[in-house]
Amino acid sequence: MEKGKSESQKGESQKYKSGGEKSDKDLFNISKKDNFSEWYVELVRRAKLMDQRSPVKGFDVVMPNAYAIWEKVQEFLNPEFKRIGARNAYFPLVIPESLLKEEAEHFEGFVPEVAWVTHGGNEKLGDRLAIRPTSEPMINYMFALWVRSYQDLPMMVNQWCSVVRWETKMTKPFIRGREFLWQEGHTCFASPEEAAKNMLDVLEIYRRLLEERLKIACFFVKRPEWDKFAGAVETVSLETLMPDGRVLQAGTAHNMGTNFSTPFGISFLDEKNEKKSVFQTTWGVSTRLLGALVMSHGDDKGLVLPFEFAPVQIVIIPILFKDKEAIVLGKCREVESKLEQAGFSVTVDSSAKRPGEKHYYWELMGAPLRIEIGPRDIESKKVVVVSRITSEKSQVSEAALINEVEKAAIKLDNELLKASGTHLIRNIREAISVKDAEAIVNSGGVAKVPFCSVEKDGEKCDKELKEKISAEVRGTLYPKSPKAEGKCIVCGKPAKEIVYVAKAY
Amino acid sequence: MEKGKSESQKGESQKYKSGGEKSDKDLFNISKKDNFSEWYVELVRRAKLMDQRSPVKGFDVVMPNAYAIWEKVQEFLNPEFKRIGARNAYFPLVIPESLLKEEAEHFEGFVPEVAWVTHGGNEKLGDRLAIRPTSEPMINYMFALWVRSYQDLPMMVNQWCSVVRWETKMTKPFIRGREFLWQEGHTCFASPEEAAKNMLDVLEIYRRLLEERLKIACFFVKRPEWDKFAGAVETVSLETLMPDGRVLQAGTAHNMGTNFSTPFGISFLDEKNEKKSVFQTTWGVSTRLLGALVMSHGDDKGLVLPFEFAPVQIVIIPILFKDKEAIVLGKCREVESKLEQAGFSVTVDSSAKRPGEKHYYWELMGAPLRIEIGPRDIESKKVVVVSRITSEKSQVSEAALINEVEKAAIKLDNELLKASGTHLIRNIREAISVKDAEAIVNSGGVAKVPFCSVEKDGEKCDKELKEKISAEVRGTLYPKSPKAEGKCIVCGKPAKEIVYVAKAY
Repeated sequence: MEKGKSESQKGESQKYKSGGEKSDKDLFNISKKDNFSEWYVELVRRAKLMDQRSPVKGFDVVMPNAYAIWEKVQEFLNPEFKRIGARNAYFPLVIPESLLKEEAEHFEGFVPEVAWVTHGGNEKLGDRLAIRPTSEPMINYMFALWVRSYQDLPMMVNQWCSVVRWETKMTKPFIRGREFLWQEGHTCFASPEEAAKNMLDVLEIYRRLLEERLKIACFFVKRPEWDKFAGAVETVSLETLMPDGRVLQAGTAHNMGTNFSTPFGISFLDEKNEKKSVFQTTWGVSTRLLGALVMSHGDDKGLVLPFEFAPVQIVIIPILFKDKEAIVLGKCREVESKLEQAGFSVTVDSSAKRPGEKHYYWELMGAPLRIEIGPRDIESKKVVVVSRITSEKSQVSEAALINEVEKAAIKLDNELLKASGTHLIRNIREAISVKDAEAIVNSGGVAKVPFCSVEKDGEKCDKELKEKISAEVRGTLYPKSPKAEGKCIVCGKPAKEIVYVAKAY
Repeated sequence: MEKGKSESQKGESQKYKSGGEKSDKDLFNISKKDNFSEWYVELVRRAKLMDQRSPVKGFDVVMPNAYAIWEKVQEFLNPEFKRIGARNAYFPLVIPESLLKEEAEHFEGFVPEVAWVTHGGNEKLGDRLAIRPTSEPMINYMFALWVRSYQDLPMMVNQWCSVVRWETKMTKPFIRGREFLWQEGHTCFASPEEAAKNMLDVLEIYRRLLEERLKIACFFVKRPEWDKFAGAVETVSLETLMPDGRVLQAGTAHNMGTNFSTPFGISFLDEKNEKKSVFQTTWGVSTRLLGALVMSHGDDKGLVLPFEFAPVQIVIIPILFKDKEAIVLGKCREVESKLEQAGFSVTVDSSAKRPGEKHYYWELMGAPLRIEIGPRDIESKKVVVVSRITSEKSQVSEAALINEVEKAAIKLDNELLKASGTHLIRNIREAISVKDAEAIVNSGGVAKVPFCSVEKDGEKCDKELKEKISAEVRGTLYPKSPKAEGKCIVCGKPAKEIVYVAKAY
């Protein structure tokens, strides 16, 4: 059992009398650098992002602070999906076992992870029902009813929902749980070219979400043959590099070709009245993104959030002196209202806590900007603005406040992306031996190495690599991989590919 | 088996080779007036709102056309919930049987309707897991961990999710299914007064959603003792009257008092450091609303939607004459772009269909306004605007178009609400005998009658009423019920209440 695990992780189910929260007396004194995993779990707990103490192991509560970030992700993705022609819908939670098995041998990979519904009320079901681990069988079943002619194409649907995968591995908040929130896009096209273009369209949307919005640098990798999504022709991942040197898959797009449309009978009459199978893609991101966000930007004081993802963007702290309370609080409210009118999310922390305690609290919660207002500031018609990242204080005249806040927000966001980008670029390093690759991954990097093959016959070398250096072949750069030279670092045969090797979540 | 049932209703699960859609050759020739139930099911199917052909009975697909309406409901409710202090979150899908049973005897009512998860992967679970039929046990379990002091209160969370209830009754799209989408708000307050105020706040939000947005007239009814939500102190429903004379519960708010907080141990230290149980409410609306919307406003041509809920608000139909195609289409695109810039959702139907076919199609889909543009209109710098409800055509000068469209949209919305309001008011009628009440409910109305009691001892009379006239006591007017006079129409004892009696969905 990992340290820092909450009580609820210890058994499948537990006593239901609420046990009392872990005391808040323990200070947040775990260092991100020295103990990344504990730091992460503790930060998620203290910033009230996810509560792992639910009565069912691996089914964690997405708390309001985290759900608000997820809603911002939805606000970005929904119009983008609409722009490329996808519409939101909702498909059934459960999938009959016969549909899962009969139509999709490739889905046998999911069966060990499926939660099974066997009874409805007091009635035992003939056919067990799987809680969706993913919705390909269900949505493809419906596509087969919906697609008739080329005029019905392209058809693209997206679903926001939760999925259940009965993980036996250790859970980690947002990164691995038995239930998680995601979106899953499913498409049908008349030609392979349109499906390929859809892959690029969606990956670009995801890249923009990661880099432009969440400020997390990423790169696309095409998974090797042995690591594709079950049934896909091609799986592409958005890879991000976490500060502990492990890569995290932040989203995926799969080109299904006709692998699903043929068995599911999703066909259309083309303009010449010929019957053809559709070409398909599926793609998704999950609340894993929130884990990547916390890991990437957080520090020893707490959360650091890009400006637009912070539930409270600006906290105003009144600096109270005797007999000046009313004046200071009045000014705080005035500034709050001005900033709110300009569209910012603002809070005045007028609680009884000392200013120092307030600073700690709002740093923990990741408020990007703090404004301090005391009697002297009021006299000089200025306020103090403090950035969450640098803790730099700057005096700003009230008249210029909106403008300065906007600049500070952009600066903070730029710094986050720059740090993430620098971290990624610096830590992707070339190697031409297993030993060198080992040194790279052990120092928190990604090794770029010559490799025999990403087809089936390369899997042997990948396994050897996993055993030797606990790192794996993540795949080749997508959409264009550089030409390989030299020899496979594992078997010494001529290299056909340059692949990325890393430790992974 | 009801007529008009789709294929998927016939068995628990079915063959998975797609069977081919019900042919579209059958015209939409079912009258709302003569055969309301068939009309409704057929309209839902043809307007592509819900597909009942999923492989699991009662688990229907919410299609993009319907999901778009649901998203509009979310867009209205989310800021309103935020305004009163509720924040969105996500709680686990499954609830251990022991939690459901042990802590909440009142939940025995739900057990016959629960879908049970008994296996995770290949592992048989010790404690069966219920797919949430509602989340009180789960959320109250977490509240007990979260609430400590009066400073934590009020605490309000809201969840958008699906719930599963293993209905054995016949399903009906949106109205009764085994899985449906809803929102469930759960709250904790320090005093009963705050909880009572929250009931009124939420009910007012729901009323505005129904009347101001969906244009469906409604009234609040406090359910009699025997018809409350299991465990509630008070259940209030938003009652709507469908055109077939049956009332439909379009939303509910429950005052839980301390009925749940005591067994769940949700307590707080007040300002005097005394330990107290919190006072709670829960409230929700579901995709049933979409059923109410279709039933209320639809007509024999198809859907009728309030302007803001229509995925396509304005459809432009080019009237094409030989050699003038390019000019007409160009003008259509120009008008489309102008209307889009003004914020409307617009489509030019440039398909090869005849104009008449296009009219039928867009009337079916409920586009509130149709614009027709032909060569003569272009010459006179005018367009023809047609309202979905009245089919009145009016010639509008291009210059005044935006203005006229806005006026037409408001007019349409007002007409919808007026019709719904008139229908409701005209059909609530007083009666002082069972015979009179029977005549009222059999002619599509709601009877307002003197009744002995809405406490436990009144249930006998309600049962008798159900047997005699197939109608039930819905409850008393909320928040203030008029003073009763006369005798109970069933038992003849002095009436303590004026109650509403109706046939119900």
